[in-house]
Amino acid sequence: MKSNTIADLLSKENTLQDVEIKGWVRTFRANRFIALNDGSTINNIQCVVDFENTDEAILKRITTGAAVHVKGSLTESQGKGQSVEVQVSSIKILGDSDPETFPIQPKKHSFEFLRENAHLRTRTSTFSAVMRLRSSLSFAIHKYFNENGFYYMHTPIITGSDAEGAGEMFRVSNLDAKNPPLDEKGNVNYKEDFFGKETNLTVSGQLEAEAYAMSLGKVYTFGPTFRAENSNTSRHLAEFWMIEPEVAFMDLAGNMDLAEDFMKSVLSYILKHNREDLEFLENRLLDEEKTKPQAERSEMSLIEKVKFVVDNNFKRVSYTEAIDILKNSKPNKKKKFKYIIDQWGADLQSEHERYLVEKHFNCPVILFDYPANIKAFYMRLNEDGKTVRAMDILFPGIGEMVGGSQREERLDVLKEKMKALDIDEEELWWYLDLRKYGTAVHSGFGLGFERLVMFATGMGNIRDVIPFPRTPQNAEF
Amino acid sequence: MKSNTIADLLSKENTLQDVEIKGWVRTFRANRFIALNDGSTINNIQCVVDFENTDEAILKRITTGAAVHVKGSLTESQGKGQSVEVQVSSIKILGDSDPETFPIQPKKHSFEFLRENAHLRTRTSTFSAVMRLRSSLSFAIHKYFNENGFYYMHTPIITGSDAEGAGEMFRVSNLDAKNPPLDEKGNVNYKEDFFGKETNLTVSGQLEAEAYAMSLGKVYTFGPTFRAENSNTSRHLAEFWMIEPEVAFMDLAGNMDLAEDFMKSVLSYILKHNREDLEFLENRLLDEEKTKPQAERSEMSLIEKVKFVVDNNFKRVSYTEAIDILKNSKPNKKKKFKYIIDQWGADLQSEHERYLVEKHFNCPVILFDYPANIKAFYMRLNEDGKTVRAMDILFPGIGEMVGGSQREERLDVLKEKMKALDIDEEELWWYLDLRKYGTAVHSGFGLGFERLVMFATGMGNIRDVIPFPRTPQNAEF
Repeated sequence: MKSNTIADLLSKENTLQDVEIKGWVRTFRANRFIALNDGSTINNIQCVVDFENTDEAILKRITTGAAVHVKGSLTESQGKGQSVEVQVSSIKILGDSDPETFPIQPKKHSFEFLRENAHLRTRTSTFSAVMRLRSSLSFAIHKYFNENGFYYMHTPIITGSDAEGAGEMFRVSNLDAKNPPLDEKGNVNYKEDFFGKETNLTVSGQLEAEAYAMSLGKVYTFGPTFRAENSNTSRHLAEFWMIEPEVAFMDLAGNMDLAEDFMKSVLSYILKHNREDLEFLENRLLDEEKTKPQAERSEMSLIEKVKFVVDNNFKRVSYTEAIDILKNSKPNKKKKFKYIIDQWGADLQSEHERYLVEKHFNCPVILFDYPANIKAFYMRLNEDGKTVRAMDILFPGIGEMVGGSQREERLDVLKEKMKALDIDEEELWWYLDLRKYGTAVHSGFGLGFERLVMFATGMGNIRDVIPFPRTPQNAEF
Repeated sequence: MKSNTIADLLSKENTLQDVEIKGWVRTFRANRFIALNDGSTINNIQCVVDFENTDEAILKRITTGAAVHVKGSLTESQGKGQSVEVQVSSIKILGDSDPETFPIQPKKHSFEFLRENAHLRTRTSTFSAVMRLRSSLSFAIHKYFNENGFYYMHTPIITGSDAEGAGEMFRVSNLDAKNPPLDEKGNVNYKEDFFGKETNLTVSGQLEAEAYAMSLGKVYTFGPTFRAENSNTSRHLAEFWMIEPEVAFMDLAGNMDLAEDFMKSVLSYILKHNREDLEFLENRLLDEEKTKPQAERSEMSLIEKVKFVVDNNFKRVSYTEAIDILKNSKPNKKKKFKYIIDQWGADLQSEHERYLVEKHFNCPVILFDYPANIKAFYMRLNEDGKTVRAMDILFPGIGEMVGGSQREERLDVLKEKMKALDIDEEELWWYLDLRKYGTAVHSGFGLGFERLVMFATGMGNIRDVIPFPRTPQNAEF
């Protein structure tokens, strides 16, 4: 007999009566009621042990964290909180769990403590819900692109190029770490390294995705990217996953449409498929917020926030309009901003983005047409000669979720820009080729996947939405 | 008017007559017929230019590789090879392509040459077909696991552990490459590195996947893995993608069932969704094989091979049986093998695997229950004390496609094994915890994604099934 998942047994469609379950004990109370979980759902199934007819030695081994194999019959439950339960006919202990030392006790643990036990934290309801949602969002992403004619491509992780300039990189090497070979000038001789050149971990797959867009039409990446930045914040990881669609013949307006439609689609998916996980996390968040002063609590619950994004248009605002709004805003006039906005051209700080998104518009905002000199070299210069077709999507409570642009498709303009920024043409010969041979308007964006998971789960620290976070001074597990 | 994809226009369901297409010119002949491709399908659409009423200057710019914007009406084609064509009413050149210098000429290029132009090679039919199939296989993989109750998890790429021992690793560091800080013993002081310890690129996500299986039940990874091995062969990459499912409460027999069902499912998917790409690659392979002596040609065509795997059971053979077959085989008796099989315990070489798969059984073979001492530390020891519950799946023409095992779930046995192999218990404290708290039978496998793409596309060199291959002395693009 094949064992059943708890999700199947608890579903309304279930017709089975004789059941067999394998899972982990969450709690065991009154020597009688096991709350059993197997990961297939946030819900435990209650297994009722006939303690009078069960070996005392076995009963003692039914402890939090133990793996057990239960056989029995599914009946309507008399107790509160569940519609069905299992009357246990036999129980076998597969793996014990010493209740004295098992780190995941049936009580509230701090997230810091659980991070130190990241290998066991998915045995809690919170983290199992977060990781199921992470998985669902991943699938929704692949599904969306597949249904819309995009091809998934794997861009390289190890890169010989550092031209993208998105941030500090990690070096990948095979040379002797202590005594690297040196060249005649006394520099490290990377010609002797594995790849025959200096290599790093990628910060973005965009440039390579552009090459594929300019032949396959619509492509996307979904892979790990890296930043060697010493930022110990709740919103940064050294290793994180990014989604980067890139589309030929699409301009910035199309890019905004795509990003908005895409985000609404993947969030709709979890509203449909992960209701119970969302409800659990919604309640967790309500509990957490009860400890905060009224003013700091969210106006909307988790599910309301997700629905709000699905149901409402993102507000599209040019950088120039945003500067006007900010210049005339109360916090600017009263000098409450750390960085006062006094002129066009200022780089927006997190405090300004939050004001726009959380106070002024109170909805997701797409800012576009930024000053050229605060954005990357590959962005399409507007006819005004001073702004580029860039866009950032800002979310309430999260900040920047998406960064994208129409790409500079004109060879001469691109070369000029690279020259001004001292970017080596030879290193990006192939990227320039895309403008030499059959160039066309094209656009794309990058979405930090963990930011999306944070938004969808209501988790406040990015370390809690990825299985084994990598941050400064931490590469445990 | 939104432009149409060529795939849509060529589909039987199309009802549009006024059409607008953007794409790249594959060929332009008789000053009249453009073969246009936009990546949405292997097929080009024929666009017929009214050359008498088209500006001479424009006609000259319709060259192989140029990006164009065509408007016109879709009509039944009089010519051979296509059912419909576009009578062009207007054509605009979006991006020129100098026919003298454009590397992708309308002729046969060697794969070596195309590898050097990997940024443009998807503008050929062969590579666009390969990459569409790669994308389809990726989606089929996510779909299969999603439909079967698995959660997708992202295991870490940067790892502080080197215990898995699957091969040479790449070091990831942020220290000064030339003058790294040294500790009091004169060794490189990794405490000053970004993560506060020595870190490498992962060779497998299995151990972390086990942690999640032991809480979420069924999980899988699909991510990049790395080997710093100086193997310049047509079957090895330094950076490749791997799929690793891991399932709690599943034994080796279940593992074999899963692997077989999984592979059949994803291959069925492409038979259904990528017929035209497969047919193109099948013909390419037939052409290629015509240059080979009869004895070296495949008995089956590409699609026949894929169907064969879908329709036939994989042959399950224990290592012990395999040794008997090999000992009594002609090439062994006639000493044609480089490594003669004379006793139980020998590690099987590629020549032996090929004999079993391609000569003896002539179908995919699952070998299982290998001698413990030629397999990894985490594999479940059988009751005989000398074999482990390992399995390898071998494919005709490819060799090892899958490697997997039931994992050692017994804490004492695992510790003993680690001690014998000098693996530090402290480094794998968390892996041992999985056996301390609620351990259970569990199993999983790893599938090298590029090997699967090779099988499904008939491509002979692994460098030709990944967008930008990483191999010794090569990290271009």
